Amino acid sequence: MSFDLVLFGGTGDLAWRKLMPALFQAFRHGSLPAGGRILGVARDDLDDARYRSFIRSRFDEVDLAKRPSADEFERFGQMLGFVRMDLSQPADYARLSQRLAERQADTVVMYLATAPSLFTGVCEQLAAAGLNTARTRLVLEKPLGHDLASNRAINETVGRVLSEKQVFRIDHYLGKPSVQNLFALRFGNALFEPLWRRENIDHIQITIAEDLGVEKRGAFYDSTGALRDMVQNHALQLLCALAMEPPINAHADAIRDEKLKVLRSLKPWTAATLDGHAIRGQYTAGKVDGQPVRGYLDEPGVAPGSHTETFVALRAEIANWRWAGVPFYIRTGKRLAAREAHIVVNFRPAPHAIFGAPPGAANRLVIHLQPRDGLELHLLAQAQDGRQWERQTTPQLTPVSLDLDFDKRFGAERVGAYERLLLDVIDGRLNLFVRSDEQEEAWRWVEPLLAHWQAHPQGLRPYAAGTWGPSASSAMIARDGHCWTEER
Amino acid sequence: MSFDLVLFGGTGDLAWRKLMPALFQAFRHGSLPAGGRILGVARDDLDDARYRSFIRSRFDEVDLAKRPSADEFERFGQMLGFVRMDLSQPADYARLSQRLAERQADTVVMYLATAPSLFTGVCEQLAAAGLNTARTRLVLEKPLGHDLASNRAINETVGRVLSEKQVFRIDHYLGKPSVQNLFALRFGNALFEPLWRRENIDHIQITIAEDLGVEKRGAFYDSTGALRDMVQNHALQLLCALAMEPPINAHADAIRDEKLKVLRSLKPWTAATLDGHAIRGQYTAGKVDGQPVRGYLDEPGVAPGSHTETFVALRAEIANWRWAGVPFYIRTGKRLAAREAHIVVNFRPAPHAIFGAPPGAANRLVIHLQPRDGLELHLLAQAQDGRQWERQTTPQLTPVSLDLDFDKRFGAERVGAYERLLLDVIDGRLNLFVRSDEQEEAWRWVEPLLAHWQAHPQGLRPYAAGTWGPSASSAMIARDGHCWTEER
Repeated sequence: MSFDLVLFGGTGDLAWRKLMPALFQAFRHGSLPAGGRILGVARDDLDDARYRSFIRSRFDEVDLAKRPSADEFERFGQMLGFVRMDLSQPADYARLSQRLAERQADTVVMYLATAPSLFTGVCEQLAAAGLNTARTRLVLEKPLGHDLASNRAINETVGRVLSEKQVFRIDHYLGKPSVQNLFALRFGNALFEPLWRRENIDHIQITIAEDLGVEKRGAFYDSTGALRDMVQNHALQLLCALAMEPPINAHADAIRDEKLKVLRSLKPWTAATLDGHAIRGQYTAGKVDGQPVRGYLDEPGVAPGSHTETFVALRAEIANWRWAGVPFYIRTGKRLAAREAHIVVNFRPAPHAIFGAPPGAANRLVIHLQPRDGLELHLLAQAQDGRQWERQTTPQLTPVSLDLDFDKRFGAERVGAYERLLLDVIDGRLNLFVRSDEQEEAWRWVEPLLAHWQAHPQGLRPYAAGTWGPSASSAMIARDGHCWTEER
Repeated sequence: MSFDLVLFGGTGDLAWRKLMPALFQAFRHGSLPAGGRILGVARDDLDDARYRSFIRSRFDEVDLAKRPSADEFERFGQMLGFVRMDLSQPADYARLSQRLAERQADTVVMYLATAPSLFTGVCEQLAAAGLNTARTRLVLEKPLGHDLASNRAINETVGRVLSEKQVFRIDHYLGKPSVQNLFALRFGNALFEPLWRRENIDHIQITIAEDLGVEKRGAFYDSTGALRDMVQNHALQLLCALAMEPPINAHADAIRDEKLKVLRSLKPWTAATLDGHAIRGQYTAGKVDGQPVRGYLDEPGVAPGSHTETFVALRAEIANWRWAGVPFYIRTGKRLAAREAHIVVNFRPAPHAIFGAPPGAANRLVIHLQPRDGLELHLLAQAQDGRQWERQTTPQLTPVSLDLDFDKRFGAERVGAYERLLLDVIDGRLNLFVRSDEQEEAWRWVEPLLAHWQAHPQGLRPYAAGTWGPSASSAMIARDGHCWTEER
C-alpha cells in the first residue's frame, strides 16, 4: 500500500519535534508501509535535499535512543521530499497537485501541522485544486476553534470538502498505551465490567498535572486557558473512555457513538454548580524542583492583569443509570507540584468490615498515563510479619498493590502515541480519533463555564507555583468526603 | 501472659523438624510471650539439660537462616524443659502435674505430637490427673481417625474432657499466608465479592501436587491413601475458604459456621459420579527431575499388590445459590511432575468479544500456596508493539498478569504456617483451626468414595512417576470443556 503524507507546516515545531521522530520510529519498527513518501510543505526556500538536511539536523535535538544512525537516516531520508508553498496562493496548490500526480499513491494524507487559523482556508484551497479525492485523508490537531461556534464553523467547512470518515481529529491522549488499555481492560476482560458502575464505584479522579509553565507559548496560552487547552479535549476524552457503555464492536463509529452518549449525559451546569463545582486558579511565583519560578502574569506574552486560568478543578456527574450520583473529579493545571497524569477509580469500601484496616482504606485502580504507563490495583491483604499479628484479636489488613508496568511489559517494542496515531491515519483506522459531533458536544458542555468565568473574573484564585493548585480545589472534593490522591 | 507448652512426642520428628524451629522463629521475631516454658515429654532418658542439648543438635538439620546462633540458643534454651513419661502410666501424669504446679501459668498447652492412636488415651489420663482445667488447651494433629466413626470417637473422648473452645485441630494449610490472604481478599476487599459467584466464575481448580513419593512413611501411607491424607482435610479446607459466604465477623465460630455450611452443601455422590467424578491412581516407576524412581508397589512398607491410591482427582459441586453448576476440581498426588500447590479461579470469558484474543483466553486469579506464596491476576491487555498492531483491523489482546508475591512483599518478616498456628494456640485464637463438626462433615462426604473404592479396587489407574497422574484425570475435566492449568 503506497501513501503520500503531506506535512503542512513541515518545518514547524510540531513537525520536527513530534511527527518526524514518530514517523522515523514507525520506519525503524518496520511498521511504516514501504513505498511511502513524506512531503514537507512550507514557505521556506528549500528543496528535497535541503529539507532532508534540515530534518536530519533537527534529529540532534531528539532523545538519543530515538535518533537515527547515519545509515538509518540514509534510508529514511529517501522518503522525504519538499514542496514550497504559500498557503494563500492557489497556484502553489497546483504545484502540490503536480507533485502528487507524479504517482498515484493509494492514500494521500494531508496533515495540517499549521496554525489553526489556516485550517479552513487550506481545506477550501485543497478542494479548489481538486485535492479532496476519495484517496484523501485530513489530519487536524487541536485547537479546533475556541468555542462551540468556531469549532462548528471549522467542522462545517471541512465537512463540505471531505466526508467525516476522511477526517482524523487528533487527541494524542487517545494514543497513549494506558488509554488504549483502558478500553481493553473494560471490554476485553470479564472481570471489571460487573464492578464498573455506581453500585461499586465511589468516585473517579482524573488528574493531568504539568510542572512546566507556559514556556514560550504565553500569548497563545493567554487567549486559551486550561479549560480549553486540556479539559474540553483530553480530560473529557478520558472521562468518555472511563464511563462509556460497552460498544457493539471495536469499530470507530461504534466507539464514538458511545462516547457521544456520555458527553450528552453530562449534567448541565446550574447557577449553584458553576461556582461550587468548578474551581479555577492562576499560578503566582513559587518554587518548582527547588528552583524559584515566576508567576503567570510575569510570563512573556501574557497580557497585564490577565484573568486566564492556568488551573481547573471540576466535579462532573453523568446522569444515566450506570453513573448517577458518582462524582467524576477532573483536575489539570500548569506549574503544579509534579508532572503526573493519572486516573484513579476509587471503589466503595467493603459493605461490612470484619477485619481491621487503616482508616479510609478501600480498593483503587490507578491508571498511570504520565510519566509512566501502567496499572496499579490497590488491595488490602493480611500482613505476614510477626509484629503486626502479635496480640491482635482482629486480623489487621495492610495496603498492597498488584502492578502492571506497560513500559516494562512491552518495553523495547513500545509504540509512542504519535507513532500509533500516524499509523492509524495511514491505515485508515478512525477508532482513536474524535468525531465532529463529540467535539461539539464537549464544547457545548464547557461553554457555560467559559461564559460564567468571563462575566465573573473575580472567581480566579491564585496558587503558588509548585503546589497542587488553590486550596478551594481540595475544599471542593472534601465537601463530598473525599480527597485528591496525593492528599491521602 | 505466661504459658507452659507441653510437647508430647517431644523427641519425635514433628517436634524437632517443625515445632521447635517454628517456636524459635516466634522467639526470634519477639512474638513469643515472655515467661513461657516449653516442656518436652517423651520416654527417653533425658533431663532438662540433656533435652536442650538434644534440641540444639537437631537445629543443625534446619535451614541455615532459621538456625539459632549460640547466643540466641542460650536464651531460647532457657525456656526448654523435659518431663520423662510413659504415656500409659498414670503415675507419670502425676509427675507432669507436679512440674506444671511449680508455677501457675496462665495457659497450659498440651500439644499431642504423638501417634494418633495415643490421642484418646492421653486425653483420658490428663483428665484423670486433673490436668484438664480451664487453663488447658489441647492441640491435635491429623490424622484424627481414618473414617467418620473413628474420627467421631476421638472427638467424643476429647469432648468429654475439654470444651470445644479448648481444642485446636491443626490443618497447617490454614496457616499459609496465601490462605489467610484468601480470606482477606474475599472479605476485606470490595472488589472480589461481587464477582465471586456462578454468574462470573466458570470453574475452580485446587491442585496440591508433590513430586516426592512416600519416603519412609510407606506403611503409614499404605493404610491411608491420598483421599484421607490430603483431600478430607487440606483440599476441603481450601474449598471451604473459597466457597464460604461472608462470615458475620472474623471470630472463629462465625468462620467455622460458614465453612460447615459449604461442606453440608457439597453434592452427595451418586452411582454415576462415584465413577465419573472421582479418578484415583497409583504411581509406577518413572522419572522425577531426570532421575529414575521406583513405583509405589516397590516402596518399603507398602503391602504387595496394594490398592492404595497415591493420586486423586475429584469434581465437586456445591448445591447452593452462589455456586450451583460451578465445578470445583480437586487434584492431589505423590510423585507428580512438580511440587506445586495452587488454586486457580477461572472467570467466565467476556460475554461479547469486540477485540481479538487468543483462543480460550479468560481472566484467572491464581493463588499460589507452594513453593511460593502469592497472587497472580491474569488479564488481557493491548500489546504495545508495532508488529502486533500493524495491519490488524481488530485490536488484538495479549495475556498479561498483575502479580503480588507475598514472599517479596513481606519477605524478611514472614511468619511460617506452624509459627502462626502455634502463636494462635498460645493466644487462644481459634480462627484457623478446625472444629469437630467440620471434620466430621468432611468425613461424611468422602466416606462413600472410600467404600466404593474398597469394593471396586479395579478402578485404580497406574500413572508413571513424574507425570500429572492418570490420563483419566485430564479426560474427566475435558468432558466439561476445561483443562488443568498446566495443559493450557
